[in-house]
Amino acid sequence: MTYCVAIDLDEGLVFCSDSRTNAGNDQVATYSKMHLFGRDGDRQFVLLSAGNLATTQAVIAKVRRDIEDGNGGGLLSVSHMTDAAEYVGRINHDELQKHADAGGQSGFSPDATFIVGGQIRGEAPAIFLVYPQGNFITTSDSTLFLQIGENKYGKPILDRVVTRETALDEAAKCALVSMDSTMQSNVTVGPPIELLVLGRDALTVSKRLKLDADSDYLVALRNGWRDRIVEAFRALPDVSWNAPT
Amino acid sequence: MTYCVAIDLDEGLVFCSDSRTNAGNDQVATYSKMHLFGRDGDRQFVLLSAGNLATTQAVIAKVRRDIEDGNGGGLLSVSHMTDAAEYVGRINHDELQKHADAGGQSGFSPDATFIVGGQIRGEAPAIFLVYPQGNFITTSDSTLFLQIGENKYGKPILDRVVTRETALDEAAKCALVSMDSTMQSNVTVGPPIELLVLGRDALTVSKRLKLDADSDYLVALRNGWRDRIVEAFRALPDVSWNAPT
Repeated sequence: MTYCVAIDLDEGLVFCSDSRTNAGNDQVATYSKMHLFGRDGDRQFVLLSAGNLATTQAVIAKVRRDIEDGNGGGLLSVSHMTDAAEYVGRINHDELQKHADAGGQSGFSPDATFIVGGQIRGEAPAIFLVYPQGNFITTSDSTLFLQIGENKYGKPILDRVVTRETALDEAAKCALVSMDSTMQSNVTVGPPIELLVLGRDALTVSKRLKLDADSDYLVALRNGWRDRIVEAFRALPDVSWNAPT
Repeated sequence: MTYCVAIDLDEGLVFCSDSRTNAGNDQVATYSKMHLFGRDGDRQFVLLSAGNLATTQAVIAKVRRDIEDGNGGGLLSVSHMTDAAEYVGRINHDELQKHADAGGQSGFSPDATFIVGGQIRGEAPAIFLVYPQGNFITTSDSTLFLQIGENKYGKPILDRVVTRETALDEAAKCALVSMDSTMQSNVTVGPPIELLVLGRDALTVSKRLKLDADSDYLVALRNGWRDRIVEAFRALPDVSWNAPT
């Protein structure tokens, strides 16, 4: 399993991803799911990946090769953010087709899902969720974040905290709490946790962090959150059993 | 969708359920999912239901009929709590079989899942999760609650707060917060919310409550929780971007 989230704010974009992959309980491994492509001052793209590891690796390899080969169609030459999403979607769809006739065999699924985010000079920053079929959705004024993988446990805190005006560092902290809640409830989501911020119009990576399970900050965040949640719960009014129903 | 939870504590049992059913977005209705059977001073059973409404209604109707007809096999004559779970499982399985050959038609599934909890005089209180296949699981020292339906959003707070020693009223409040978190994130889980407490060895319903969406207590709980969660989040340490990675 996987949990990745990207947040679209006035000040820029925040990306957060876990690093655990598993193909059965006895085949657990660590892979980064955050991939960075760009040219400082011109464009930056962050790809977050979830789903079949072979497919995600094939897609990322193809994206990288297109850039290195200067194949025209790569991320460094697209004109618009939607073109970038469409490009990743096409590669994802093509990779899937290669294994389509194995679909359903012993529960095998080659499906992969991506978050593609970033900014091209002269355009606004944007994030997209790219489906296995190659089509994609983006954020809106009322939907400021996109998630892939195990999205339920970590959604409530994002819903409660994030607004368009939230500062980048605040949103980054919220992404980490969202990630921590997910890790507490799903053992197949795990560290290291990667966190990346692209400030609006910076066109370079503003801040980046990789946190191991026992990093001081992650431990402080986890314990602080746990204590405060329990404290908040205890402060709530007791059930009034005699209230009119 | 549905969300129901039952909690097994030293002091007794807590049950909580929502009341929204839907078969498509334009066919939303309200049904109680909490069903009580018992004889004061001798035994009390609470059944919570999730899944296909036709199946759950058929199962509950059969349970009720067996009691009214005095058919021998009913809940009022079983000797042990596990017999009660097995009895409900058998009825559930039989109902399912009636519609098994329609399974898969236009995504149709007759599956239903139950939580069966309660106490028989001379035995400890117990709760069981009864699967569509008729088999069942119970709680343990490290798994104090069982959930059916949309279980993810509401699980973290239960994980953090509930221990075997938690007081009944505290656990009841926690079940309501768990329910409220679920309602915030899934529109197909909705009020009225039913809450019921069976004190250990009381062998009668200790406390029962039905809360509408706009009940004063539920509103106070929801707003209080939202405010305190955001407050707790703001109090967490800021991301330390310069920490060693």
